[in-house]
Amino acid sequence: MPDSNPAPPPPPRHAPQRPLDHESFRALGRLMVDFIADYWRDIESRPVLPSTKPGDVRAALPPHAPLNPDVGDYGPVLADLERIILPALTHWQHPGFHAFFPANISTPAVLGEILAAGLGVQGMLWQTSPACTELETHVMDWMADLLGLPESFTSRSVRGGGVIHGTASEATLVAMVAARHRVRSMHSAGQPPHFTLYASDQAHSSLVKAAMIAGLADNPEDRRHVRLVPTAPDLSMDIQALEKMVREDLDAGRSPTMVHATVGTTGSTAFDPLGRIADVLDRTGASARGSWLHADAAHAGSAMICPEFRHLQSGVERADSYCFNPHKWLLTNFDCDCFFTRDRKALTASLSVTPEYLRNPGSETGAVIDYRDWQVPLGRRFRALKLWLVLRHFGVSGLREYIRGHVRMAEWFESHVRADRRFELSAPRLMNLVCFRLVPKPGQDADELNRALLTRLNASGRVYLTHTVLPARGRTPARYVLRFCVGTTTTTAEHVYAAWELIDREAAALLG
Amino acid sequence: MPDSNPAPPPPPRHAPQRPLDHESFRALGRLMVDFIADYWRDIESRPVLPSTKPGDVRAALPPHAPLNPDVGDYGPVLADLERIILPALTHWQHPGFHAFFPANISTPAVLGEILAAGLGVQGMLWQTSPACTELETHVMDWMADLLGLPESFTSRSVRGGGVIHGTASEATLVAMVAARHRVRSMHSAGQPPHFTLYASDQAHSSLVKAAMIAGLADNPEDRRHVRLVPTAPDLSMDIQALEKMVREDLDAGRSPTMVHATVGTTGSTAFDPLGRIADVLDRTGASARGSWLHADAAHAGSAMICPEFRHLQSGVERADSYCFNPHKWLLTNFDCDCFFTRDRKALTASLSVTPEYLRNPGSETGAVIDYRDWQVPLGRRFRALKLWLVLRHFGVSGLREYIRGHVRMAEWFESHVRADRRFELSAPRLMNLVCFRLVPKPGQDADELNRALLTRLNASGRVYLTHTVLPARGRTPARYVLRFCVGTTTTTAEHVYAAWELIDREAAALLG
Repeated sequence: MPDSNPAPPPPPRHAPQRPLDHESFRALGRLMVDFIADYWRDIESRPVLPSTKPGDVRAALPPHAPLNPDVGDYGPVLADLERIILPALTHWQHPGFHAFFPANISTPAVLGEILAAGLGVQGMLWQTSPACTELETHVMDWMADLLGLPESFTSRSVRGGGVIHGTASEATLVAMVAARHRVRSMHSAGQPPHFTLYASDQAHSSLVKAAMIAGLADNPEDRRHVRLVPTAPDLSMDIQALEKMVREDLDAGRSPTMVHATVGTTGSTAFDPLGRIADVLDRTGASARGSWLHADAAHAGSAMICPEFRHLQSGVERADSYCFNPHKWLLTNFDCDCFFTRDRKALTASLSVTPEYLRNPGSETGAVIDYRDWQVPLGRRFRALKLWLVLRHFGVSGLREYIRGHVRMAEWFESHVRADRRFELSAPRLMNLVCFRLVPKPGQDADELNRALLTRLNASGRVYLTHTVLPARGRTPARYVLRFCVGTTTTTAEHVYAAWELIDREAAALLG
Repeated sequence: MPDSNPAPPPPPRHAPQRPLDHESFRALGRLMVDFIADYWRDIESRPVLPSTKPGDVRAALPPHAPLNPDVGDYGPVLADLERIILPALTHWQHPGFHAFFPANISTPAVLGEILAAGLGVQGMLWQTSPACTELETHVMDWMADLLGLPESFTSRSVRGGGVIHGTASEATLVAMVAARHRVRSMHSAGQPPHFTLYASDQAHSSLVKAAMIAGLADNPEDRRHVRLVPTAPDLSMDIQALEKMVREDLDAGRSPTMVHATVGTTGSTAFDPLGRIADVLDRTGASARGSWLHADAAHAGSAMICPEFRHLQSGVERADSYCFNPHKWLLTNFDCDCFFTRDRKALTASLSVTPEYLRNPGSETGAVIDYRDWQVPLGRRFRALKLWLVLRHFGVSGLREYIRGHVRMAEWFESHVRADRRFELSAPRLMNLVCFRLVPKPGQDADELNRALLTRLNASGRVYLTHTVLPARGRTPARYVLRFCVGTTTTTAEHVYAAWELIDREAAALLG
């Protein structure tokens, strides 16, 4: 090899650290596993909501990063966690957590997170870890079948398939961008389309946020492109109102682009009627111009593994995309939003940019999925592992029993609210969320009274509930109501019973 | 309590599962920790790139989710991981991984991920876990100081601060949306602004992707709003060309909205001159109209913890936002993009939508940060934990030594390329990336030759390199070149030496 360098300089000395040291990890990993196991064991001894004041945590931390290692044998780290961090957490896994919607974790999901972290692979392209992509595609097909979704949402179809997004907010944004692309590509020449979006006035704030990001709203109140459709008495989308809005937009030459239908609203778990929405898009001619129906089942979608709930999303086979979050109510750690579409080409056409440094033999064949083109970010964690382990650990039957158990507890809680003259049920309970409030005595301010009840409950440290304001209906003005959600992994019937007893006592104290 | 229900029905029976069982987790967590430790120990025995064919992984998996639990004692799970998953991974932590940019993990970062997964809290609002927000703000201030960033990028300033995003792609999108908001709010009445964006022709594809998501490009080639600025011979942004474009847009009544400057390009680690870009925006009057300078230091930002590299980003104090990814080259698991801004109000003004169910006492005081308004998603993981542990585990001195070690190895590799007549150095090496190629003999096709070299190297199983195409310069046509990045956690000088030996042998074989 006459051309090769005859005398290479010696290689430089390597830094002595071993940042990925298997022996120390073996010991430290156990330490952390035990720390978490202890945290789970003792979680009920902590108040659900901390009494932290703004700045408390920061005041306990040193002002600068340490120049030299300061973890010692990790005893100091565990002590800081115990002293600074844990007392300033809102304990989402506490059995008394009934706020918002839950953020489920579980033993197999945490195991999946350990694996994903330890393998440390990137799944942006099929080639950058084939198993990361293929396990995801496969588990998403399992999940589509489990939810009773149509074949067109699986990878077995020619044009569909599933992907794990971080959150439903991202799913909404991706659906919106894909919808805009499709409507634009079907738009006849001339003026560019004036895109319009529709969601009920009970839809999640992520719809408006996505519109702001996508350039379809300058601010939350901007209604040039966003239409908030009024809701019926049951808080589902008013279909006649939707049809009127769509027709007005079409008549004015605008392009209905996406209906964001909610399968279980955040406020009260109301269900927009998917089939009837699809009818509106069909009979107005909006579908023929490319308009997209996105079904956001972020929370309630988990229940669709039980066939008895599926009537609540009938017509789902006519949606263009559907998403739900196993990280809410299906025992899978955040972040895990399952997004299905029957038009994956619209996603890739609107999100794919391929610079030279990402070209590779796998992608060039066209025989593989590159999930970077289905999402906002480029990089991606190996999130399918946790979903795979959850499905295998509990089995379909175990997951169904889990969901049904929560719904039964919520039914039981509802029966107490109904049986107690001091309370009113403020919205239909269709699943695991009960909206209720104290009925004021003459002269009492209802909102004031219920705000006081919420404050007393949350100050107890034993439960955490949140509130919402349900819109005015006929002669009923807008109402401040409490939301009691049964969905935390650790919550048992005994906890729900104890919560009701607490509510009963605090109500009695308040009413005097 | 006369109003309370005298005879509540009995609570329903609870499902027998304990999905968050501390005892089983103690054992299973150890099993996973040991599995990962073994994986790290033996990683070098695996080929960096798998020989997987499309569909191989899926063919090994059952067609449906199991009806009943099928994990047994997790022996079957570990067996499936070993048999199906590991052989189909691209091993990003393999010491022979020199492709793309690295995706560092480390012992403390994985510990941080275990903690975050096990605590299972949501940091969308301060109130939903004060420690999650405050540790993040604090560690981001540590990081700003560590990088030599100005005070205005810390939470100690009135208007600035840092947040952890998932990826630099998200950071680009958020900066773009904030920039658009600011330019719009400073725009004088009349026609809405025609927003324009500037990035060098070497900028990351995430700039164009963000423009497509934000509605500022219909497709990757759409140049109505996006300006790709030519680059100088060193592949940094050509400042005269930028100034010309900005002036033309201003003269035509358009609104220069954001310059996306790259601090270390993906192709060749070229550095756009931040100070001179800021000069252009100032002297053309674009700054006075609100235009935003975003500095994307996704990969190279990690090196800025070493003062000797900071001259490469001089002028950074004049940027409006800055981001870098510790998940690339600073030993912190994906996802972790550190984003700093000196105008956080522009973020919150363009991203905040507050429905009733998210209102809470903490946020109403205005005394706290709600990070949901700084990002695309609503929910967020406790990502600050891993960064906190990384900083404490290695200390600033350890992190600096880590970076310097990689740069020294890349220098050494460069010296071999330079000393060997068969090769050419294809771009200046400023950090840990060497762009090089084989010089063709007369009659040989250079690109063909180097494609063949890359194929041979990657087929060896011992290294993984990727390529890029550097743009034409003067009489030099566009060139297909190999990228050799030294940034993987496990890579030592011996590995780099072995890689060079392999390249030397394969080159000799190719050249005959």
